[in-house]
Amino acid sequence: MRAVRLHAKWDPRPEFKLGPKDIEGKLTWLGSKVWRYPEVRVEEVPEPRIEKPTEIIIKVKACGICGSDVHMAQTDEEGYILYPGLTGFPVTLGHEFSGVVVEAGPEAINRRTNKRFEIGEPVCAEEMLWCGHCRPCAEGFPNHCENLNELGFNVDGAFAEYVKVDAKYAWSLRELEGVYEGDRLFLAGSLVEPTSVAYNAVIVRGGGIRPGDNVVILGGGPIGLAAVAILKHAGASKVILSEPSEVRRNLAKELGADHVIDPTKENFVEAVLDYTNGLGAKLFLEATGVPQLVWPQIEEVIWRARGINATVAIVARADAKIPLTGEVFQVRRAQIVGSQGHSGHGTFPRVISLMASGMDMTKIISKTVSMEEIPEYIKRLQTDKSLVKVTMLNE
Amino acid sequence: MRAVRLHAKWDPRPEFKLGPKDIEGKLTWLGSKVWRYPEVRVEEVPEPRIEKPTEIIIKVKACGICGSDVHMAQTDEEGYILYPGLTGFPVTLGHEFSGVVVEAGPEAINRRTNKRFEIGEPVCAEEMLWCGHCRPCAEGFPNHCENLNELGFNVDGAFAEYVKVDAKYAWSLRELEGVYEGDRLFLAGSLVEPTSVAYNAVIVRGGGIRPGDNVVILGGGPIGLAAVAILKHAGASKVILSEPSEVRRNLAKELGADHVIDPTKENFVEAVLDYTNGLGAKLFLEATGVPQLVWPQIEEVIWRARGINATVAIVARADAKIPLTGEVFQVRRAQIVGSQGHSGHGTFPRVISLMASGMDMTKIISKTVSMEEIPEYIKRLQTDKSLVKVTMLNE
Repeated sequence: MRAVRLHAKWDPRPEFKLGPKDIEGKLTWLGSKVWRYPEVRVEEVPEPRIEKPTEIIIKVKACGICGSDVHMAQTDEEGYILYPGLTGFPVTLGHEFSGVVVEAGPEAINRRTNKRFEIGEPVCAEEMLWCGHCRPCAEGFPNHCENLNELGFNVDGAFAEYVKVDAKYAWSLRELEGVYEGDRLFLAGSLVEPTSVAYNAVIVRGGGIRPGDNVVILGGGPIGLAAVAILKHAGASKVILSEPSEVRRNLAKELGADHVIDPTKENFVEAVLDYTNGLGAKLFLEATGVPQLVWPQIEEVIWRARGINATVAIVARADAKIPLTGEVFQVRRAQIVGSQGHSGHGTFPRVISLMASGMDMTKIISKTVSMEEIPEYIKRLQTDKSLVKVTMLNE
Repeated sequence: MRAVRLHAKWDPRPEFKLGPKDIEGKLTWLGSKVWRYPEVRVEEVPEPRIEKPTEIIIKVKACGICGSDVHMAQTDEEGYILYPGLTGFPVTLGHEFSGVVVEAGPEAINRRTNKRFEIGEPVCAEEMLWCGHCRPCAEGFPNHCENLNELGFNVDGAFAEYVKVDAKYAWSLRELEGVYEGDRLFLAGSLVEPTSVAYNAVIVRGGGIRPGDNVVILGGGPIGLAAVAILKHAGASKVILSEPSEVRRNLAKELGADHVIDPTKENFVEAVLDYTNGLGAKLFLEATGVPQLVWPQIEEVIWRARGINATVAIVARADAKIPLTGEVFQVRRAQIVGSQGHSGHGTFPRVISLMASGMDMTKIISKTVSMEEIPEYIKRLQTDKSLVKVTMLNE
């Protein structure tokens, strides 16, 4: 079958030490310290075959390009990939996907029916392939699995005609039928994973809000936009997005933002205090990836706002140190949480139900393309900020 | 009556702007930006008189010197006081106190009896004089009162023969009778306020622990030591204190610490991972006041520990920026909270009950002195780290 594959050279930086879970020449938890000269191309590969009774084969319908895909193919001046995390090359990319079950092992249970998966069931799947038995998994924290594998990072992903996953990662999209017609159901399904990343950040880790609270989201990428939609549905009275790109600011308004700010032209702090009548916000989401730049402004809003108990949730990955002022969080009774992942905690099913009850995330899809065009768009997304989400749509 | 008074010169730094709640020449929320050349001396002052029906007059028995008292009298190279917060001079210092009610207004209700305060009732009192009607107070967050006054900072405090407080800040110490004899009851009572600051940090803001969790406390001052005792009573399996001073490390062991670390001689990170069999801790308390130094080590423990869900509670005040690595808190599912104050949330009564049921904090009192000696010890505590708590004991 055809698949989009990433190849790169195992060429560790001088200071790199093989981690306990790394495999020489094949897999590392510190991608940007090892892999060099990445190349992305469409190739002929063998079709996946079921090897365990709990596995299913999915005919891929839609698969979105994620910032991580872009960063795995993007390099620094020395040719090292930008993506810092778990990576095992060569691999078929792609993890934000949906499709139809075409084959199911005898013990591949569909949680919708609690019976074996039916052929033809529309599904999406988690990207974090948690093991289910390590201590974090056993305690209900699969996003922090000690034996983690990741679809499209070190396990062949969904920029292909078919993809194989264990049934425990798959979620039925039946609930979207009658709400989304034809391909739109699968486009929506391909956005469950990124929307769940935002859900994990603002609801599970961020603690959610009470209806009537204000929220501020920094960064209008897919995660920030999803947070806008989720929090509006959660009853936020004012959802404010700060984002330099006009395209993204407009999308945010379509998804429920009450106010949008162009931080390159307006004073972010004054605008937030103004829009919230000086009260500030209960939840701030750092989804820009440049926390060292935006953090002092978040602190100034928290310091000057009359409201207290703000939570700052960090979801974007960034190496830069954040200049934290402890006193702001003491005097204004505020807190900071870090968020990773999208699995567990009932997040995927709730996101699917939200999508079925009016939260239409497909608006953020800028363009649907063929598999052959994916390598080109993975490159273009490095620079073209007008594109928010580019999604492969198979026949 | 005799009282320990602090005088200082109102001489704002060039960049200082009078705050909305500041009063020219008298009161500021940014002490270290205004007050210069502080002097502390014992003087004759008028005895307090009841002016409102809800007030009580207390004959002071014991009153401890707090780090804040030391910092109000300590100056930088330009003669400005070190204490950064709310200050209104001249003022009688002292807020960690206990005593006996000698006079009570007709509506001065004792919460133990829900009736008017009896003469002779042993009491302690909160230092944060919250208003009770602003939005934070009305929502149950008196530590963040918008109309805050502070006993011993801008309202005459308890380094005196008598002190006046509103009944709503006072808490009966009857529960300590039969457990602490004679003056020891008042010495224990004088430690309720600082112990409550630690309680607010680790239990109310820090979220407490589950019995069996490990905890790590950095900084063995009165707050750090109180946290050791509280968390051992809360069922922590391993309480670990990191503190350079041997006197304080020994006190920590007496109060329940399982392990103590001298960070100037041992590798803090290796020691914590070793004592916890690599699991790390659920709660870290930053009580050193030099977060910029200890933070990287806290992060390294969290990053390398197999446990997840750690909370770092910041209770010590510090101007220095903290070098925060967002990824540590994302990947290890950790969070940071800031803590201020000791009021509300049922903290004072619980600390008194803990003291009545075996948590004897009087061990941290290094020395009891007369009122005349207080000015000298406020100065000595700037440098003498062997003294943990110096407490005035009146006849």
